[in-house]
Amino acid sequence: MPSVAFLGLGAIGTPMARHLARTDWGLRVWNRTSARAADFAAKYAELGVTQAATPAAAARGADVVITCFAVSGDVEMLLDGPDGLLAGLARGATLVDCTSGDPTTSKRLAARLAAMGVGYLDAPVSGGVVGAESGTLTVMIGGDANTIETVRPFLEAFGKKIVHCGAVGTGDAVKAVNNGLLALHLWSTAEGLAVLTSAGVDPAVALDVINTSSGRSNASMNLFPERVLTRAFPRTFRLALLDKDVGIAAQVAREQKIPTPMLQLTAELYQAAHRALGEAADHVEVVKWVEQLTGTVIKSQDASP
Amino acid sequence: MPSVAFLGLGAIGTPMARHLARTDWGLRVWNRTSARAADFAAKYAELGVTQAATPAAAARGADVVITCFAVSGDVEMLLDGPDGLLAGLARGATLVDCTSGDPTTSKRLAARLAAMGVGYLDAPVSGGVVGAESGTLTVMIGGDANTIETVRPFLEAFGKKIVHCGAVGTGDAVKAVNNGLLALHLWSTAEGLAVLTSAGVDPAVALDVINTSSGRSNASMNLFPERVLTRAFPRTFRLALLDKDVGIAAQVAREQKIPTPMLQLTAELYQAAHRALGEAADHVEVVKWVEQLTGTVIKSQDASP
Amino acid sequence: MPSVAFLGLGAIGTPMARHLARTDWGLRVWNRTSARAADFAAKYAELGVTQAATPAAAARGADVVITCFAVSGDVEMLLDGPDGLLAGLARGATLVDCTSGDPTTSKRLAARLAAMGVGYLDAPVSGGVVGAESGTLTVMIGGDANTIETVRPFLEAFGKKIVHCGAVGTGDAVKAVNNGLLALHLWSTAEGLAVLTSAGVDPAVALDVINTSSGRSNASMNLFPERVLTRAFPRTFRLALLDKDVGIAAQVAREQKIPTPMLQLTAELYQAAHRALGEAADHVEVVKWVEQLTGTVIKSQDASP
Amino acid sequence: MPSVAFLGLGAIGTPMARHLARTDWGLRVWNRTSARAADFAAKYAELGVTQAATPAAAARGADVVITCFAVSGDVEMLLDGPDGLLAGLARGATLVDCTSGDPTTSKRLAARLAAMGVGYLDAPVSGGVVGAESGTLTVMIGGDANTIETVRPFLEAFGKKIVHCGAVGTGDAVKAVNNGLLALHLWSTAEGLAVLTSAGVDPAVALDVINTSSGRSNASMNLFPERVLTRAFPRTFRLALLDKDVGIAAQVAREQKIPTPMLQLTAELYQAAHRALGEAADHVEVVKWVEQLTGTVIKSQDASP
Repeated sequence: MPSVAFLGLGAIGTPMARHLARTDWGLRVWNRTSARAADFAAKYAELGVTQAATPAAAARGADVVITCFAVSGDVEMLLDGPDGLLAGLARGATLVDCTSGDPTTSKRLAARLAAMGVGYLDAPVSGGVVGAESGTLTVMIGGDANTIETVRPFLEAFGKKIVHCGAVGTGDAVKAVNNGLLALHLWSTAEGLAVLTSAGVDPAVALDVINTSSGRSNASMNLFPERVLTRAFPRTFRLALLDKDVGIAAQVAREQKIPTPMLQLTAELYQAAHRALGEAADHVEVVKWVEQLTGTVIKSQDASP
Repeated sequence: MPSVAFLGLGAIGTPMARHLARTDWGLRVWNRTSARAADFAAKYAELGVTQAATPAAAARGADVVITCFAVSGDVEMLLDGPDGLLAGLARGATLVDCTSGDPTTSKRLAARLAAMGVGYLDAPVSGGVVGAESGTLTVMIGGDANTIETVRPFLEAFGKKIVHCGAVGTGDAVKAVNNGLLALHLWSTAEGLAVLTSAGVDPAVALDVINTSSGRSNASMNLFPERVLTRAFPRTFRLALLDKDVGIAAQVAREQKIPTPMLQLTAELYQAAHRALGEAADHVEVVKWVEQLTGTVIKSQDASP
Repeated sequence: MPSVAFLGLGAIGTPMARHLARTDWGLRVWNRTSARAADFAAKYAELGVTQAATPAAAARGADVVITCFAVSGDVEMLLDGPDGLLAGLARGATLVDCTSGDPTTSKRLAARLAAMGVGYLDAPVSGGVVGAESGTLTVMIGGDANTIETVRPFLEAFGKKIVHCGAVGTGDAVKAVNNGLLALHLWSTAEGLAVLTSAGVDPAVALDVINTSSGRSNASMNLFPERVLTRAFPRTFRLALLDKDVGIAAQVAREQKIPTPMLQLTAELYQAAHRALGEAADHVEVVKWVEQLTGTVIKSQDASP
Repeated sequence: MPSVAFLGLGAIGTPMARHLARTDWGLRVWNRTSARAADFAAKYAELGVTQAATPAAAARGADVVITCFAVSGDVEMLLDGPDGLLAGLARGATLVDCTSGDPTTSKRLAARLAAMGVGYLDAPVSGGVVGAESGTLTVMIGGDANTIETVRPFLEAFGKKIVHCGAVGTGDAVKAVNNGLLALHLWSTAEGLAVLTSAGVDPAVALDVINTSSGRSNASMNLFPERVLTRAFPRTFRLALLDKDVGIAAQVAREQKIPTPMLQLTAELYQAAHRALGEAADHVEVVKWVEQLTGTVIKSQDASP
């Protein structure tokens, strides 16, 4: 019976780990704030979940170690020292990093692990908390095709669509570009609706047209009707993290000398919005910053106050 | 039996007029290149369609005059002189301008017509040639609600979704913003796929992920798979016209002093692409210009040469 | 003895009119707030200056009428009605508009005046209050070369450098582009110094290097050392007016379909800064907005608090 | 008698080394293409200049080692191996890197050298070939103040203005920002003149005004009159290198999370221009690319064809 370790019990990681707990494999969990790992292990103790005291202990004997953190640097910091992952990982094991990471760090991680006979995949996920809960995440993978086949059953515990993107780092790159497009479309739609609102058009009417026309996007079809027009702005995915993702996409473009004026401008605007709105703001709250810059409020005229 | 005139038998106007021909109303058509109007009238003679020799003759006695040209200026040029629309339009008639026009000209047209007791609606359409053929266009209307009710039956001959956006000019504004978003998303997706292609990711694989994730848009879901990856680039809607639409959206933003850095950058990039690719290029061919700037080709690795 | 009228006694117009008062020509002045014209006429009464009750009265019998307002629209509003300029201007007279205007309005003004046999020159000035006081302004002129020769003595009363730029509107265009570059360099230098300040470099040291190197500009050589590092930010030229000028430059570019991504981005940034900082802010205070966006203060480390 | 080594005999490095040769210090030179070092040593043999066979040999016994290459990575590649700089550098020596480098690599270099008791300064120069020939370069230095004092006599052999900018990396940062501003102003002035040329203004007339007004910069005062209007475009500093410098400035901004939309857009435009114009193009030839994008030629109307 294979053994799997999961490190990083955040908003996405926790439901992912829950799906792994429900398999026949032995699951060990570790979290920086150890209370969260203790709670998780207690809750799923009858499924055989245990808490590891250190990353090394989590990795020891594991066939697959899955990490899910905010940034690649968080994973890199867990490698070294007597309690680090490298002290526990066995030759032949695989580290699957589900962090929305950056390709440069992923390549560095892969090289260090390869030197020890450990496989590495960058495997960021999309689908959000909802997709993680329902086990229907999309997993974008950079790395070796054979390694992917080895760990596929584990990925399928939480992922519905498993996509091999290319060499190490390409999973990160695809995730970053997807999120860069999300950020860009969120901003562009806010600009468009600010203009129309200022011109006297009810943004609900404008969205009704756009969403049956050629200007529609995921942002216009889902985020604006549900979160902006309603002024609900639920906090599901932090602006700080989307800012980080756009920055990775922008950085990947620069490293390859690919001119991307629109993506780079998006990176600047999100940096500024992130600074203005703070660490707690949701990504959709960037619309509030557009409203402030433009002196508008993108609110349905029919909406009750 | 009401009488309707249709001026401007272009790629979109011709199928729109065809739907009107099939009603019980008398239809007169006029076109700058008169051969096209003659052909149309001949083809639908048994439905009672006749060709008007001049805009004035087309308008004379018509309850509704519908215009469909490339730019608002084309309509404005038809107003004056003994053969002009103003010489034919009767008090109580309505001019419905289905041109993807600009609000400033539309407001000027409306004011001139109002002084003569003629109604005016800016009523650009979306849905393309396919929507025009099937009579399922979306019609975005700026103008008076009562006037819209008067002409609704005529609009429903070719439009499925009739949306009142606000005062005169708002139909144009909504259309321009929608098309501005189309232009923006077309470019942003090209940038993202150029980066990923350069990073070694098959753009077909990247699109497969993006189109089930948060970065998707009409451009990524329809235009890239069908027209770019296949290298088909069919010519359905000219880049020159999309450039014009983005320019109108950018202008509306400026007139209202709404900062829109992303939309304005899009206007610049399309101006440059239009200049580089010429008048005949299709709007999706802007992707070829992105490819040239970035030194990439966004082509599926599996595509046969 | 020729007669001259001056309309618009603002910060720049007043010292310009003073230079005209000191010539042998008869000078009539008019100002929207009439108290200011009354004060001026009283102060220079012994030089023969009189106050005109209306624009028509100012223009009546004048060989040259000079206007100096905030925007072209201000001049256009003075034309019509029984008290308007057109009611007073005689065939053969010349209207010299020293407003930092826009080419489109200037062309419209020129056409209306030409129909009455009145000459028109757009003749914005640069040099600021200091140059106006010392009579050393640069005058950029659009219009007919012969007309310029006719009015040259009047222009030389306050201008040191009289430059014929081309046809009507080109004086405005050159002024707008010059100010657009000022705005752009002010912002770019603020960005550069924000980056260096954040990297731990004293901005005074950075400017010392830049101002002997290739990155220097009028902004870096004069505005930053005197106004920003000192935190003096004197109010000499309103941000609102510079925003307007950048907007004119951006508009001229768009009308001619000249892609200018950097200029257009500048227009957006100044629109946003203008909205954020309000009507009273000086143009150099845009640096404060850059500081806010970047979380920096561009202040010499040696400056006393 | 102190001993100095100079590595990197390029267009700037060669005249710098010549100034060092004329001092009383012993000078050893090394160059990747060894023929150039051989020629130099032969030419200045009577001044005691010798050629070193390897970087290690150049560094052995030297009090100061000066490097001057295209990019920081060129220096980093010379460190290791039996022939590398680290094999020759003695405890107490100082490496002065006059490359227009990047702060990140400079910090890495400094850390590696510090571990061996070797000092490090990033000390890029400005003033071009002319300043290097005349020994009047500006030297921007990042590093320890005491170390700077130790090597000051060597720097004064070729530098007139020696500026301590701050900690290691700040010399690079200041140089990159200065060159970023040069790039930005070169582009902005090209945009402005393209607009005015298209509006019918002679760019020589426009520059005459701008250069006595607030829109002037080093680019407008020197580069445009001497190199663009004349169509001379001499090749003095490669576009590829300026593109690299703008990229460093943009990267420094990103690393510190300082929003810099104008600088980042400049980086994109230069990347695209560099790709379009190739490796041999001079930096001022970027104007040719602006001309191509805008369909203009920025040429004095009086210039003979």
